[in-house]
Amino acid sequence: MTTRGLFITFEGIEGVGKSTQIRAAAAALEDLGIDALVTREPGGTPMAESIREVLLARRDEPVHETTELLLMFAARAQHLEILIRPRLAAGQWVLCDRFTDATFAYQGGGRGVPRERIAQLEGIVQGDFRPDHVILLDAPVDVGMSRARHRGELDRFEQEAMGFFQRIRDAYLARARLDPQRYHIVDAAQSLEAVSGAVASFMQVLVRDRGQGS
Amino acid sequence: MTTRGLFITFEGIEGVGKSTQIRAAAAALEDLGIDALVTREPGGTPMAESIREVLLARRDEPVHETTELLLMFAARAQHLEILIRPRLAAGQWVLCDRFTDATFAYQGGGRGVPRERIAQLEGIVQGDFRPDHVILLDAPVDVGMSRARHRGELDRFEQEAMGFFQRIRDAYLARARLDPQRYHIVDAAQSLEAVSGAVASFMQVLVRDRGQGS
Repeated sequence: MTTRGLFITFEGIEGVGKSTQIRAAAAALEDLGIDALVTREPGGTPMAESIREVLLARRDEPVHETTELLLMFAARAQHLEILIRPRLAAGQWVLCDRFTDATFAYQGGGRGVPRERIAQLEGIVQGDFRPDHVILLDAPVDVGMSRARHRGELDRFEQEAMGFFQRIRDAYLARARLDPQRYHIVDAAQSLEAVSGAVASFMQVLVRDRGQGS
Repeated sequence: MTTRGLFITFEGIEGVGKSTQIRAAAAALEDLGIDALVTREPGGTPMAESIREVLLARRDEPVHETTELLLMFAARAQHLEILIRPRLAAGQWVLCDRFTDATFAYQGGGRGVPRERIAQLEGIVQGDFRPDHVILLDAPVDVGMSRARHRGELDRFEQEAMGFFQRIRDAYLARARLDPQRYHIVDAAQSLEAVSGAVASFMQVLVRDRGQGS
C-alpha cells in the first residue's frame, strides 16, 4: 500500500523568502530520496492560474471582498481536487507556496472579512482536509517589504499600506500559536542561508519520523 | 426619496429565447417611460465577464464542480455589489438574463450539487437579497435544444446530454411552483410574438401596480 505523501505549506508576508525556502525544502527532500511537487496558490493548474490572473489583474473596477474570497477558494478547489489530492494519494509529497492560512491572514486579518465566513468556505472546499505542516516564515513587516520592493513592480495586494501587512503578520502568528504541533515558525529575518538550514533540518526530521527516505 | 427599482430575472434552458424576451421586456418598459438596465449572468461587469470566460472556456483539464460553483458565485458577488444593487438603489429597474435560480437548476438539478451547499453560498453572497420577479421561459427540452443548435457551436454546458437539460427544466419548474407570487411561468413553446406579448403584458402589470410609468 502506498503511504500518502505529506502536504506542507509555506506561509508569510511579502518578501520573507517563501519561493527561495520552498526550493530549499525540495532540494533537502531530494537529497533524502523524497520526490516532492512544488506548487503555489492561487494557481497550480492551468485553470487555477487563469483564476489567479483574474484576481491579480490591475483594473479600474473595484473588486468586492466577497468576489475576491470566492475566487481564492475557487482556485483552491481546483488545485486541491485536480492536483494536490491525487499526488498525495500517489505517495508524492506536496510543498505549496500559500494555502488557506493565507486567506485567514490576508482576507481575514488584512481586510477584515469575518473569520466564520472564511471557515465556512474552507468547509465547503476542503471538508476536513488541512496541511500536515505549515512553515510560517516570519519577519518584521519592514524587513519583508524592503526585500519585496527590490523585486520590481508591486501587484495590487503589495500596493496596500504597511498597516495591512502588520495585521496579516499578526493573524499568521495568532494562528500558529494556537496549534504549535502543526505550525512551525521560522525566523525569516536571519540570513537566507540560516533560514534554508532551518528549513532543511525540519525536512530531515519529517523524513526521519516517517521512516521514509533512501 | 427615490423608489428602489425592481429586479427581474429571466430564466430557462438553452433555446427558450431569454435574450429575445429580455429585449421585449425592456422595450415594453421603455414605452411606459421606465428606464431598465439589461444585464446577464455570469457577467455584467468587466471583472465578472473575465470570470465568465474562465468558466466557459473549453479546456482539457476537468473542471471540479466546486470550482464551477464558486466561480459562478464570485461573478455574481461582483455583479450584484458593483452593478445591480447601486442601480436598483438609484431607482433603475434591472432585467437580468439568469441569476441564482440558474445555479439551483444547472448545478443543483443538472449536476447534482447538494441544494444546501448552493443555499449556503447564496447566503454568503446575497444575504436575503432575491429577485422581485422571476420570469421562467419554459419549453420542452427538444424545442429549446433544436433552437439553440441553429445558433452555432455549442459551449461546454450546451454539449451536455438531453437528460441533463430535462433535469434542469424540472428543477426550474419545481422552484417556480413553490413560490407562485414571485415566479411567473411563460409557455416559451409558443411563437416568439406570443411570448413577447405575454412578457410585455406582465411588464405593464408591474408598472401599473407600482404606480410608476409616465
